[in-house]
Amino acid sequence: MTQIVDQLISCRWIATVTEQNPLLEDYTLVVNHNKIVDLLPQDEVASRYQAREHFQLGDHLLIPGLVNAHTHAAMNLLKGYADDLPLMTWLNDHIWPAEGQLMSDEFVYQGTQLAIAEMIRSGTTCFNEMYFMPQQVAKAALEVGIRANIGLTVIDFPTAWAQNPAEYISKGLAVFDQYKGESSLRFSFAPHAPYTVSDEPLLKIATLSQELDLPIHMHVHETAHEVNEAIKSTGKRPLQRLHELGLLSPLFQAVHMTDLTSEDIQLVADNGVHVMHCPESNMKLASGFCPVGKLKDAGVNLAIGTDGSASNNDLDMLGEMRSAALLAKVASGQADCFSAHDALYCATMGGAKALGIDNLCGSIEVGKSADLCAIDLNHIATMPVFDPVAQLIYSASRDQVSHVWTQGKLQLKDGQLTNISLSECRAICEHWQTRLLQLKHNQS
Amino acid sequence: MTQIVDQLISCRWIATVTEQNPLLEDYTLVVNHNKIVDLLPQDEVASRYQAREHFQLGDHLLIPGLVNAHTHAAMNLLKGYADDLPLMTWLNDHIWPAEGQLMSDEFVYQGTQLAIAEMIRSGTTCFNEMYFMPQQVAKAALEVGIRANIGLTVIDFPTAWAQNPAEYISKGLAVFDQYKGESSLRFSFAPHAPYTVSDEPLLKIATLSQELDLPIHMHVHETAHEVNEAIKSTGKRPLQRLHELGLLSPLFQAVHMTDLTSEDIQLVADNGVHVMHCPESNMKLASGFCPVGKLKDAGVNLAIGTDGSASNNDLDMLGEMRSAALLAKVASGQADCFSAHDALYCATMGGAKALGIDNLCGSIEVGKSADLCAIDLNHIATMPVFDPVAQLIYSASRDQVSHVWTQGKLQLKDGQLTNISLSECRAICEHWQTRLLQLKHNQS
Repeated sequence: MTQIVDQLISCRWIATVTEQNPLLEDYTLVVNHNKIVDLLPQDEVASRYQAREHFQLGDHLLIPGLVNAHTHAAMNLLKGYADDLPLMTWLNDHIWPAEGQLMSDEFVYQGTQLAIAEMIRSGTTCFNEMYFMPQQVAKAALEVGIRANIGLTVIDFPTAWAQNPAEYISKGLAVFDQYKGESSLRFSFAPHAPYTVSDEPLLKIATLSQELDLPIHMHVHETAHEVNEAIKSTGKRPLQRLHELGLLSPLFQAVHMTDLTSEDIQLVADNGVHVMHCPESNMKLASGFCPVGKLKDAGVNLAIGTDGSASNNDLDMLGEMRSAALLAKVASGQADCFSAHDALYCATMGGAKALGIDNLCGSIEVGKSADLCAIDLNHIATMPVFDPVAQLIYSASRDQVSHVWTQGKLQLKDGQLTNISLSECRAICEHWQTRLLQLKHNQS
Repeated sequence: MTQIVDQLISCRWIATVTEQNPLLEDYTLVVNHNKIVDLLPQDEVASRYQAREHFQLGDHLLIPGLVNAHTHAAMNLLKGYADDLPLMTWLNDHIWPAEGQLMSDEFVYQGTQLAIAEMIRSGTTCFNEMYFMPQQVAKAALEVGIRANIGLTVIDFPTAWAQNPAEYISKGLAVFDQYKGESSLRFSFAPHAPYTVSDEPLLKIATLSQELDLPIHMHVHETAHEVNEAIKSTGKRPLQRLHELGLLSPLFQAVHMTDLTSEDIQLVADNGVHVMHCPESNMKLASGFCPVGKLKDAGVNLAIGTDGSASNNDLDMLGEMRSAALLAKVASGQADCFSAHDALYCATMGGAKALGIDNLCGSIEVGKSADLCAIDLNHIATMPVFDPVAQLIYSASRDQVSHVWTQGKLQLKDGQLTNISLSECRAICEHWQTRLLQLKHNQS
């Protein structure tokens, strides 16, 4: 007797990102009540399941939905606003003045809407966010149904969101309280960086993080300059200071990590810290190289993020996996130090582990949420196929992402967004482009 | 009175890649007899021209067709065949054995057909080729109408194409004689690398190159290992040896160039040598960093190439420009050392100059051939637009290439190839995939 289920997804290859079944060929995935309930050979399906919807995807590769492990979603509106500049000129003369003028609930909400559209279009089903107005990020994510881990930003300076660290924390926790019942949302403390948050709020965050079991999401060792300045002013490397303040634990997500000694690597390994690698941002801002091969060898969990669109300039995790794999090789001089399979792992399970949600998603396994992404490899640039994962990482581009599901909900079908209006996205862009061009005009 | 012309192309932006008019807005380009005959504001067109075909491209950016300055086209069939391996394992245990078994007229012809399809699909209108069976490359390029500079490979070792350097040269020159009347084809000598070609054939090539005005296309300083081994065996750096043999001149195209001292840079600058930068191949094979910022500052002409698909793994010049811009920054530590505009220049005019065809193509100017590429920036990932060139380099992907013309011939229309059959490409892939999988099976 056959069982009636919600969805069947049949495709040529399934990269489960599990140790037991790394790659399945000609399998069907069974989804019911938004969860993966079975994985079985295609020829066994008819006798066991009937589905309300059956996706016959041919030469597609199905992977776990991609986890963007670090971004500032609303900065999507600033992509291409200022490029090819040294970091401090870029920030001081362009990005911060623009943000200072425009930061508002509307800016964050609409910028995040646009970012979510781009992320889903390119296969991302979960993002780890650090910006302002977290309630607007929550609202935009909930409306579409994408999974989000929302950082509650803390910084010593006043912004349109809060005036001082105590207010950032209290306003952030109020947003956490408002949304903590939502199954697709998680929250973390997001102290901006060692050089922008002083000891007192960091100590408070360390305590609250353990008490509430909330992760800490922080830029750390983004550049050698940051590390050198910290040594000058505190006598310590930033990681050492964070360790002494009690922040380093399996709840800690260290973003960037480009200037690391072997002692630093041991410290993060010993404390179960997760590293969020943002290769394209590190390249574009000339920040430096995150030693992903050495971190992997030391047993550190690695995730991959795009960073904000203003320093990338996209939210394309397919491209980011590729850059991660390519950069790791040339930076280490070892062509075998970080493989296509490593990149896929970090962008799925690695991200889910870092966010503490690997029990829910990150791999294709019975019992997990149906957070999925299908890529059509029947494309001039990805034929022939010897290893579908190698073709995904080294040859495919984001336009080959054909279908995306978040928690069983179909978000992209044959390359078309099903729950987001492109014309609304265009209107958002036009509105903010006009305001940003005015700003540029007034400044010059 | 209006003039009747072949084609009008109207679009929002035209990046001419000339000093006088870097970016035109709301202009129309006029094509007649395969050449660019005018560029004028859109509102002046009606009173001056009538066209057989008028492309109204809206929010598109028109650029000169991209010049892929270094590739081995037929290796497209080997993409993803072996990845994530150290260079010598990759070559000795995988690539060379496969080539040894399969190299034939059919392999090169069909592999090149597939490569041309991928190149046109992603905006490339000219490629600089180095492989075997050059007559097959000529045949495949002529059939479609893509511009090609075909390397006449010379190597000390026997292959299916020739047995010794003298035979490589004589067979190569016979192909040159057969095709030299074709306006879309150019030829060059392609001695493989300093470590695979001895002095005698190199001296002969130096003489013939000057006599016939044929460029020389060569891998040089691909890795520090190559340079160190050369110093051990000859006491000289490879570039110095090539200089002493009389090869370095404005006819010389040096590919890779990752291990360069300031003396090396001065030497290539003084001799007018062109550098063909292949960033993704250098990353994937962990070869090293080409110091593009320093070369640019020294006045060296730079071009950008994808290298063969087996070490990239694609022929996507949009992605390659992006990797070039990102890698230059992180490798030098300077975020302003190589801009989006620099990347576009190198991938168009830089390539055309290196190939000695900048009088024909490489920029959008009256009198030049209509080698063109249009990119649709009305896409979720490239909105809003502040600088269309920055969006092209940092945010666009190859699927946004909408139209391509080679010498006035429409090759891609709304993303669809007009002169190449995709089903034929699929059949080619299936055929060679079967043979390559058999090889893998027999080896294991």
